[in-house]
Amino acid sequence: MVKNKIAVIGSGAMGTACAMILAENKHDVIIYGIDKEEINQLKVGKNTKYFDEETYLPHFNTTLNLIEALDNANYVLLAVPTKFMPNVYKDVIANLNTDAIIINVSKGFWPNTTFSMHEGLAKYSEQKKHIKGIVSLIGPSYATEIVKRTITLVSAVDNNKNNVKLVQKLFSNKYFRVYGQNDIKGAETGAIFKNMLAIANGMLEGLGYKINTQAALITRGLQEMIAYCKYVGGKLKTLFGLTGVGDLILTSLSENSRNYTYGKNFFKNKTIDTNITVEGLQSIKIIYENIIVKKILDLPIIEALYQIIYNQRDVYDTINDLLSRKLKNE
Amino acid sequence: MVKNKIAVIGSGAMGTACAMILAENKHDVIIYGIDKEEINQLKVGKNTKYFDEETYLPHFNTTLNLIEALDNANYVLLAVPTKFMPNVYKDVIANLNTDAIIINVSKGFWPNTTFSMHEGLAKYSEQKKHIKGIVSLIGPSYATEIVKRTITLVSAVDNNKNNVKLVQKLFSNKYFRVYGQNDIKGAETGAIFKNMLAIANGMLEGLGYKINTQAALITRGLQEMIAYCKYVGGKLKTLFGLTGVGDLILTSLSENSRNYTYGKNFFKNKTIDTNITVEGLQSIKIIYENIIVKKILDLPIIEALYQIIYNQRDVYDTINDLLSRKLKNE
Repeated sequence: MVKNKIAVIGSGAMGTACAMILAENKHDVIIYGIDKEEINQLKVGKNTKYFDEETYLPHFNTTLNLIEALDNANYVLLAVPTKFMPNVYKDVIANLNTDAIIINVSKGFWPNTTFSMHEGLAKYSEQKKHIKGIVSLIGPSYATEIVKRTITLVSAVDNNKNNVKLVQKLFSNKYFRVYGQNDIKGAETGAIFKNMLAIANGMLEGLGYKINTQAALITRGLQEMIAYCKYVGGKLKTLFGLTGVGDLILTSLSENSRNYTYGKNFFKNKTIDTNITVEGLQSIKIIYENIIVKKILDLPIIEALYQIIYNQRDVYDTINDLLSRKLKNE
Repeated sequence: MVKNKIAVIGSGAMGTACAMILAENKHDVIIYGIDKEEINQLKVGKNTKYFDEETYLPHFNTTLNLIEALDNANYVLLAVPTKFMPNVYKDVIANLNTDAIIINVSKGFWPNTTFSMHEGLAKYSEQKKHIKGIVSLIGPSYATEIVKRTITLVSAVDNNKNNVKLVQKLFSNKYFRVYGQNDIKGAETGAIFKNMLAIANGMLEGLGYKINTQAALITRGLQEMIAYCKYVGGKLKTLFGLTGVGDLILTSLSENSRNYTYGKNFFKNKTIDTNITVEGLQSIKIIYENIIVKKILDLPIIEALYQIIYNQRDVYDTINDLLSRKLKNE
């Protein structure tokens, strides 16, 4: 097996989990972070901010110096919160000293735009030196479970099939299996919709609804995901995969999800805490303003979410309206 | 609104829940059953074998006499276990005295055949007097939740669009909403696969796996559902709906499902109790013998289930084999 040097940018939960897989696959891994305590803990195989004490991690090479991390790296894995990505990526590009494939694990919209993280990275990479390509890793995968070496399946997404295959091989092992996926638009549609629907599903739980209603919401939400996917030019088939239904199931039926938890607590707090990262909130706003207001698509669930969250519309009135729509075919 | 006389055949959980909806929609409902205690309880709005004491039901008209139930009924709702359906339906046909639409809520394979319940009913109905058509009600719906008037969405399935619309109107109200679905093959594919995958997902829980692995299994199982759907001539689109992904989510992620519970306890008991109705068990055998052995389709998860359940193959060996398959695209 070729030994690769991989710079993992970000010492959070997903950065750590990916670094663990790659180190266990015998690659040369270095984690860069800005949190000194996390960086020191990772040296001795701990990351107690995200994982319990029993979690066994490799003793990682770490650094607080981006230049050192990137030196001679032929893969750079970006595991930073969406909102920091533009700045972090600019720094990465500026400091690469060898050709590298960028692996992205952040999902959702590129901040303040209607294009996805993957597309945003691609745009920023145009005519930049040393960037051999971008591959996003998307699929149903909580970092807290990955670090238990529980079986996890995700997709490596890009239209460059060769790069996708390289990333599949880089990561795949006995507990982590990577499928290839060449439909970026379809995969990103799933990544965007799952968080919005997780908020909605969390709201249902917060109101006392159970699985009949949650399954109904996810299924009708999936119809809106399909409509959006067609609109952006993604493939329907992709929505059936790990980046679509797979991630939707994980995110919208599990308390581990920040978006789900946000929805569940929404009717208790009623205030929007802008400090925590609830990707779905931004997506609801972007889709409402750019798609629904402009009457490009009819997305009743996303519209209902917007009205409840941003216009304080009564949730029961909103639900009644949804249920009073004309009877129709699926 | 037209007042209809509806004979509900079967006093179990789903029969009772459907009867409740129809009675609350102001139709003339009578429940026929063979269990004297259930029938007596239903008269005073109880069915304690299935529902808790707080459940508030209408005081139903009930009977132990099939002829009385069917007299002048223009709808007959069949809510009996799959294995009794052929005999019960024969009796229903023999005793109808007016034209009626048959509404079926049983799913899976018609006993000892490779055709579905809906198709089985259609076959039995050929050239029979008084049968105006068959509509199946399929979708994510636990009876225990319906009787709490929780919001539930299902599909009315048949290729006769007029009958489908009649059943949509018959049932739909503030908490129960029915969509039309004209693709019988696609809908029945979902109904068959969800139970098999629920067994598999229950097994994962029994072995200690969590949501990463369960979401992965459901998603890869969905690929096998797609392959089967294409083979029988169903539409891919249908699998995204209430009868597909909707019911799959409900059944394979919830302890309320007999199939899930069977899987969860499988490695404790290891014996196959043939008395309880675990529809997925029969489906696994039918699909293994008729599709996999004959090499018509490659369905690795269903095959793995067959080997574990019927050939006592070691589950960890089986999982390892699944994970060692060649890396591929979704």
